[in-house]
Amino acid sequence: MKRYQALADTMAAEIRAGRLPVGTRLPSVRHLTTQYGVGQSTVFRAYYLLEEWGLIRARERSGYYVAPGAALAPKENATLKEPAPIDVSSLVFSVLDAVKRPDVAPLGSAFPSPTLFPLARLAKSLAHAARMLDPWSTVVDMPPGNEALRRQIALRYIGMGIAQPVEELIVTNGAMEALTLCLMAVTKPGDVVAIESPCFYAALQAVEHLGLRAVEIPVDSREGLDLDALAEALGTHPVRACWFMTNFQNPTGVTLSVEKKRALVDLLTKHDVPLIEDDVYGELHFAQDRPPPAKAFDTKGLVMHCASLSKTLAPGYRLGWVAAGRYADAIRRLKLMTSISTSIPIQAGIADYLQHGGFDKHLRKLRGALLTQRDAMESAIARWLPNVAFVRPDGGYFLWLQLPEHVDAMQLHRRALEHGINVTPGPIFSARHAYGNYVRINFGHPWSAQIDNAMKTLGELLRAAS
Amino acid sequence: MKRYQALADTMAAEIRAGRLPVGTRLPSVRHLTTQYGVGQSTVFRAYYLLEEWGLIRARERSGYYVAPGAALAPKENATLKEPAPIDVSSLVFSVLDAVKRPDVAPLGSAFPSPTLFPLARLAKSLAHAARMLDPWSTVVDMPPGNEALRRQIALRYIGMGIAQPVEELIVTNGAMEALTLCLMAVTKPGDVVAIESPCFYAALQAVEHLGLRAVEIPVDSREGLDLDALAEALGTHPVRACWFMTNFQNPTGVTLSVEKKRALVDLLTKHDVPLIEDDVYGELHFAQDRPPPAKAFDTKGLVMHCASLSKTLAPGYRLGWVAAGRYADAIRRLKLMTSISTSIPIQAGIADYLQHGGFDKHLRKLRGALLTQRDAMESAIARWLPNVAFVRPDGGYFLWLQLPEHVDAMQLHRRALEHGINVTPGPIFSARHAYGNYVRINFGHPWSAQIDNAMKTLGELLRAAS
Repeated sequence: MKRYQALADTMAAEIRAGRLPVGTRLPSVRHLTTQYGVGQSTVFRAYYLLEEWGLIRARERSGYYVAPGAALAPKENATLKEPAPIDVSSLVFSVLDAVKRPDVAPLGSAFPSPTLFPLARLAKSLAHAARMLDPWSTVVDMPPGNEALRRQIALRYIGMGIAQPVEELIVTNGAMEALTLCLMAVTKPGDVVAIESPCFYAALQAVEHLGLRAVEIPVDSREGLDLDALAEALGTHPVRACWFMTNFQNPTGVTLSVEKKRALVDLLTKHDVPLIEDDVYGELHFAQDRPPPAKAFDTKGLVMHCASLSKTLAPGYRLGWVAAGRYADAIRRLKLMTSISTSIPIQAGIADYLQHGGFDKHLRKLRGALLTQRDAMESAIARWLPNVAFVRPDGGYFLWLQLPEHVDAMQLHRRALEHGINVTPGPIFSARHAYGNYVRINFGHPWSAQIDNAMKTLGELLRAAS
Repeated sequence: MKRYQALADTMAAEIRAGRLPVGTRLPSVRHLTTQYGVGQSTVFRAYYLLEEWGLIRARERSGYYVAPGAALAPKENATLKEPAPIDVSSLVFSVLDAVKRPDVAPLGSAFPSPTLFPLARLAKSLAHAARMLDPWSTVVDMPPGNEALRRQIALRYIGMGIAQPVEELIVTNGAMEALTLCLMAVTKPGDVVAIESPCFYAALQAVEHLGLRAVEIPVDSREGLDLDALAEALGTHPVRACWFMTNFQNPTGVTLSVEKKRALVDLLTKHDVPLIEDDVYGELHFAQDRPPPAKAFDTKGLVMHCASLSKTLAPGYRLGWVAAGRYADAIRRLKLMTSISTSIPIQAGIADYLQHGGFDKHLRKLRGALLTQRDAMESAIARWLPNVAFVRPDGGYFLWLQLPEHVDAMQLHRRALEHGINVTPGPIFSARHAYGNYVRINFGHPWSAQIDNAMKTLGELLRAAS
């Protein structure tokens, strides 16, 4: 290890342990050169590295300061049981900003490979729809959205055994917008919401930027959400909404059983608390049948079921929706207020594809590819990382790897990035930066020498860290 | 006037005067039949009418209640000088929900006619771009956005004399998302922002749903924003941001002079207060040159210049952007958090059009059409509504009509709607529901017998109300 790396690691440990609180001004370069007996360039390179890691920030003509979100709470007692505001965004972005780099092995990506999707066939539908576009559809297809599209989406709910009224379906810019609008519709700043732990980091960010407070409900990698803990939270705190991922949860991959989904909806109905159900991976099942969403057991319109085509059909098109139950009108209005409408040609193009493009055939192919890739990834792990543990997921494209107890996932993430490999460190999946010895890896990319090499290198880095 | 209409008017006056506060349960049908000596069906029809007007709401098995936002504050002293929360959305939506009805004359629309745009040529660009789409662009073109598109946008800034760094341009789902993200980036709930009076109603709604407080700065139909009032507000209140429309302001149509724009930026720079500049109409000028945005005078990165192609090229595509200055990184991250990305094929398609489609030629044609329509609308007003006053706008597609003092614009709006005509009543353009004798009408639609008849009917309704 180079001297500047060692210096950066030393300082990172100080910051992450909370010994240098957020906003602390770091020692001057001159001071450090004396203290550690190193050259100025070593100090500068260490600072650049810390900045790249998102732990410190430069202020013009004033030096370096500890960045918000840089400090990690101790791992003991790391589930947020008392409602608290969240500050995780800086940490998340320092990790996510690496995703775009084309030279980096995409094990940290949130998406499957874009090469797995029928982009040419989609282009045909989009071209047709744009050519045929009725100018007045630019007005008529504003929220709740294109009628033909919403009828196609309602048909897919029938396939899940859900009679979904078309008028409660609101088209959005992907599921992310749907989830954000749902959260805005049922909360105001300062309210308490229940989220999962580990939790999709975007939910943490949404809670943070809407000024909400969160309680975390533990998610077990085999059993899923802890309903007893949820019942206790509902009894203790004024929870205004829950945001849960019921199928192939991100990051654990776990799916709630039908019984637990039913019990979840019953519990929330008893407390009259709405559920924002994030179900973006449900179609990516490896078993015969699609697992139903909790929405299937909702009789009171209390579940807002959010989904999209970004991970199943059309990455980058930004086409999602919410089956919003009793909140449909509030969400339609929020959508109008914040982004007016989802792109009209995109809505029409996707409607055309769903009618004529062969979605189900594509989905079967996609599921097959992901299953093959899961198995390849499992073999690579058995070969290169024999000392990690995980529960095999039955769908989606994530593995939630438990590293040996003493391994620091943040450090592994940074070391891996220096080797052109991106893995997602566990701490960004929790408000308290828990899961310090977990990483999430993505098997959504066709197996390749690049990925196999990346796994091999990861194994070496892990051995070096052990 | 029918009996149920008279009854509805009587009750509407009570509600709007604040004598029946929000949430008040209305008398039972039985009670009213006795009180007014009318039949049950008359009462029911009056209630339906009040509900349609957005003044009351039905609750299941419990009767009718006065709706939020139904009461209008007195017109005296109607500018909001002390920061206050805003509750205008219900009123706005009761007006906007009529826009989609295809049988209604679109004088109340917020958009120009979609028939004025090169949708066929755009479809060609979109089809080409979708066919050529690099699968990896679904990752690479995430925020800040497609590089070729942002370079084309930067070129247009050069045309305005602005050297706009590409890296500070962030592509959004129309200007509305850009404006919302800007507001989120520089405020937190409870903060004070300065807005215009009269003000684009969506700004009022954004302030409302983000839990901000507003001070209103008067806008004169000839001179624009009152800079003295702004200076006073900046000296008195902890204003965190301003949201102003500098060119062809909605609803007044007024454009700030170059001197005033410069003075505005100087004033805000002195106070270090960011300006969210809404410039969606600037390209629709009838004089030779495009009026510059305030951004042209910004040397500190304090102006976030928001614009879009929704009113100039591609309605319904939802393609906008912000030139975000020093806030670029914060806004890019908020965009990622709330809607991930603007549709990738849409970005690529618009980039193709801007390079090859002939945007400037289209713009010249569009400006010519709007100017012709403005003159036709002026003639119709001279003929059918001789007793209204307005300042002729030099761009955009709105007229801000001052009705005789005693005319109630809300009532005119409702009466007009019964005749299949939508006009936008003044009170939705202010936090205090001022401008009770103003309406905004849209001349963005090619002149037609329907529009001429609508103007004639409007004149008759106005005479009846006088």
